[in-house]
Amino acid sequence: MDKSSILKKRFEECNISEIEIFNYISQKNLGEFSILVYISQFEGLGNKDSDFDIYVLTEKKIGLPTEMLKIKNACCDIEYWSEEDIDVLTESIDYFNYKQLKIIKKMSLAYLISGNDSALIEKIRNIKIDDYIYSYFKSFANAEYDDAVKMFKNHEYIACLSCCQRTVDYWIASVNAKMGRANLNLKWANKIFVDNNGYDKQILDNYLNIFVYRKIDKKNIEKAVSDMLDFLTDNNNAFMFFS
Amino acid sequence: MDKSSILKKRFEECNISEIEIFNYISQKNLGEFSILVYISQFEGLGNKDSDFDIYVLTEKKIGLPTEMLKIKNACCDIEYWSEEDIDVLTESIDYFNYKQLKIIKKMSLAYLISGNDSALIEKIRNIKIDDYIYSYFKSFANAEYDDAVKMFKNHEYIACLSCCQRTVDYWIASVNAKMGRANLNLKWANKIFVDNNGYDKQILDNYLNIFVYRKIDKKNIEKAVSDMLDFLTDNNNAFMFFS
Repeated sequence: MDKSSILKKRFEECNISEIEIFNYISQKNLGEFSILVYISQFEGLGNKDSDFDIYVLTEKKIGLPTEMLKIKNACCDIEYWSEEDIDVLTESIDYFNYKQLKIIKKMSLAYLISGNDSALIEKIRNIKIDDYIYSYFKSFANAEYDDAVKMFKNHEYIACLSCCQRTVDYWIASVNAKMGRANLNLKWANKIFVDNNGYDKQILDNYLNIFVYRKIDKKNIEKAVSDMLDFLTDNNNAFMFFS
Repeated sequence: MDKSSILKKRFEECNISEIEIFNYISQKNLGEFSILVYISQFEGLGNKDSDFDIYVLTEKKIGLPTEMLKIKNACCDIEYWSEEDIDVLTESIDYFNYKQLKIIKKMSLAYLISGNDSALIEKIRNIKIDDYIYSYFKSFANAEYDDAVKMFKNHEYIACLSCCQRTVDYWIASVNAKMGRANLNLKWANKIFVDNNGYDKQILDNYLNIFVYRKIDKKNIEKAVSDMLDFLTDNNNAFMFFS
């Protein structure tokens, strides 16, 4: 299903239409503007309570704060971005800045429902945002992995277990980005990974056996975390450093 | 063991002395200065590879960047802080700013090895930093918990499992802070919690049975994550909202 149809379906579920959003924004006398809408459903995610992220692009700097409001059954977050704001955003990109990466990612996936700001939108879509997201999660995965190894060497197996769990979450998020399914919200990471069969059936099976469906007790915890570290090492080599 | 003795022992392990640190800093002609040293061992944490965090407090603004260097076997991070810097730091405290909270926490625990900047140090120690750290982790725990509940309702049990794991990590870190054992490095959270018997033997046993030593398979994953949510709900009530 294309974005237009996905959005239409979601508008219907929430009993609203584009017109109502357009009218709400029009009354603010912003001059020329375009409206972009992002919903999680564009990425095959989200549920019936998910928000509508609405980006209003304006020629002039408006200085309006983000609004969170309900239009009929739709929870809308409305942000106002001038051409100048977009220039600052796209020119100062930093892979440590989570908020910035998230906005660029959502804007680049968003669907234009009004206006014709194609040059500005093109500028956003030209950023290789997935590469930044990959680097972002990779840096966290590596830091957590180093801690996991140190905890293992110090026989701190319970601490090691939680470091391994965090490593694999970040690792999965970075692999998703590498494979073109970047998403900055960690809560979706393993769903995306599993829905895509881990991009490799054997890796998926190993992940599920080692991190999800497992039996850990006091006797085998050392072996369990050792298996986790092995999984991470093997797959780090394959995904993170040599590719 | 008091901080002076802990630090002495650690200096010996790394084959250095206070004098060498003092001499290194003296040669920079900073005018009046004090030296504070923080090591993880003050909190009963760390290992033989742990860093020395050295804070040089100066009257005038120096503008030197952080240095990372090895003095004999000791890895030292040296930061330069003027009175003015400290004023800005202590007056702009924000519980969303991880780096700021971490520096204040470490400085407040650090030991004075040279100089006599007691008014400045007092200013740092007067901040109720543990309350900020508690709020910091509590906000993450609550956000992850909300996601975990939504994932459960949507029958996304694998995603729910990782949300629960993250929730409990943040929850433990916030409980540690509440109980006077605040530490911003998540890798230490469950070690501190377990070393303190979870502050309540029954809570510790439940944590270990539900989150650490457990048997999860495809048949029981719904029950397993449901138990996790119950643990988090019960203990959220006790620790997070009503206290």
